[in-house]
Amino acid sequence: MTRKELIDLIRERRSFLCVGLDTDPAKMPEHLHNEKDGIFLFNRAIIDATIDHCVAYKPNLAFYEALGIEGLRQLKLTMDYIHGMGKAVFTIADAKRGDIGNTSERYAKAFLDPKGDFDFDAITVAPYMGADSVQPFTVYDGKWVILLALTSNKGAFDFQLTEDKNGTPLYQRVLETSKQWGNEENMMYVVGATKAEMLTDVRRIVPGSFLLVPGVGAQGGSLEEVCRYGLTNDCGLLVNSSRGIIYASNGTDFAEAAGREALKLQQQMAAVL
Amino acid sequence: MTRKELIDLIRERRSFLCVGLDTDPAKMPEHLHNEKDGIFLFNRAIIDATIDHCVAYKPNLAFYEALGIEGLRQLKLTMDYIHGMGKAVFTIADAKRGDIGNTSERYAKAFLDPKGDFDFDAITVAPYMGADSVQPFTVYDGKWVILLALTSNKGAFDFQLTEDKNGTPLYQRVLETSKQWGNEENMMYVVGATKAEMLTDVRRIVPGSFLLVPGVGAQGGSLEEVCRYGLTNDCGLLVNSSRGIIYASNGTDFAEAAGREALKLQQQMAAVL
Repeated sequence: MTRKELIDLIRERRSFLCVGLDTDPAKMPEHLHNEKDGIFLFNRAIIDATIDHCVAYKPNLAFYEALGIEGLRQLKLTMDYIHGMGKAVFTIADAKRGDIGNTSERYAKAFLDPKGDFDFDAITVAPYMGADSVQPFTVYDGKWVILLALTSNKGAFDFQLTEDKNGTPLYQRVLETSKQWGNEENMMYVVGATKAEMLTDVRRIVPGSFLLVPGVGAQGGSLEEVCRYGLTNDCGLLVNSSRGIIYASNGTDFAEAAGREALKLQQQMAAVL
Repeated sequence: MTRKELIDLIRERRSFLCVGLDTDPAKMPEHLHNEKDGIFLFNRAIIDATIDHCVAYKPNLAFYEALGIEGLRQLKLTMDYIHGMGKAVFTIADAKRGDIGNTSERYAKAFLDPKGDFDFDAITVAPYMGADSVQPFTVYDGKWVILLALTSNKGAFDFQLTEDKNGTPLYQRVLETSKQWGNEENMMYVVGATKAEMLTDVRRIVPGSFLLVPGVGAQGGSLEEVCRYGLTNDCGLLVNSSRGIIYASNGTDFAEAAGREALKLQQQMAAVL
């Protein structure tokens, strides 16, 4: 999906909501526990209930990999379902990959190649290994690398805020340096919502880039704050909510409850746009 | 595998060689191209030819993921074969994972859980997201996290060598900080062989930790240099070679040629031990 198509989709749905599919069998409603394709059935119901209120889905790869090859098979069923719906939606492999050039090329193929098993629009990538670990993700037309800048967890303070000799924190150096590796058409950044005031510094460095903002809801970030500091004329934000939507209820009404939570966020977003 | 078992194995085989299984269908000998389980058959032949000369195997996850679920199935066949051989060998998932705590827990389960599909002894992890992204990999008994410190690629210069206000490069800060997250029994570090003289600084901070050293051979590092600066009384090194061994020949003699290259390195290592 190109930048223009994404912006059009955001305007059409009046939403910049990303629904995180961190699907955990232990948290699914009981009636799905013994189903053969329980994870896929859960995801499908969540997708059907939320697609009109969101513009993106973000499966968290770890949740599928933790179940082995079987988990990845159910992720593939989920992606096949999304691709077959006939409704536009942006898909993000939350995979936090990154390795030397010849290896990142293969991770890009695994997740972004239209002929591959998954055909995601975007993948999250860690910046520690630098240029050649990131650039291979920018070569597929209409596909995106979403680079970690400032994450929403406690560990973000260990290195991301370390200042260099000029007083520049590492995450700002990552933003600055990475502008040589991609552009606003193929590179976004992860910026945690729990540090919304830092979005001012982020926007100084990457004024027009899309930001993927996790941590609204369960992780404590506020949508209002994020919009105040991060919104651009083209929206420029994808705000993710995972647990707050997909586990809104653990009864048979889980999909309905998820739809309601997604709609609430969409209405707040529509008011801002 | 515990630290003691690993050291005993190194002494017994008189080797600290790790063979990287970066198996690329396009580089395999032609007679395997049309085999159903060609990647597994290639790996099995390489393993049979090299196991007496090495102490570790390191499949690079990207090469398997690039082939989709089918690639992971062949990785599982490879791991099942290694576990069933009745010969001790250390196994490393070169996966460069790392995410917020509840997600890293699941990556740990995916790769290290003895009841999982793969049951590796160790996994490589990127440090960018800090403490809670790394610690979940240290909770399995006898299993290891191998944290990226200084990698062997060009992109390593982008951030890993950035000095903070006290003149400490980021990779040294990673080494120093991570000592609070694990110990010599469950944490190793990736230190690229192309920067062997920096091993002196690394050894000042982590004098007894095992180091996984990629980049000997195809990536230009020298075994002699690595040993001069990195070897400890307990060896303290796993030196990886991938392409130099597994693609030593692309004919039907590929396994024999791989065995010869592994033996050469093992003999150099025996001379040093």
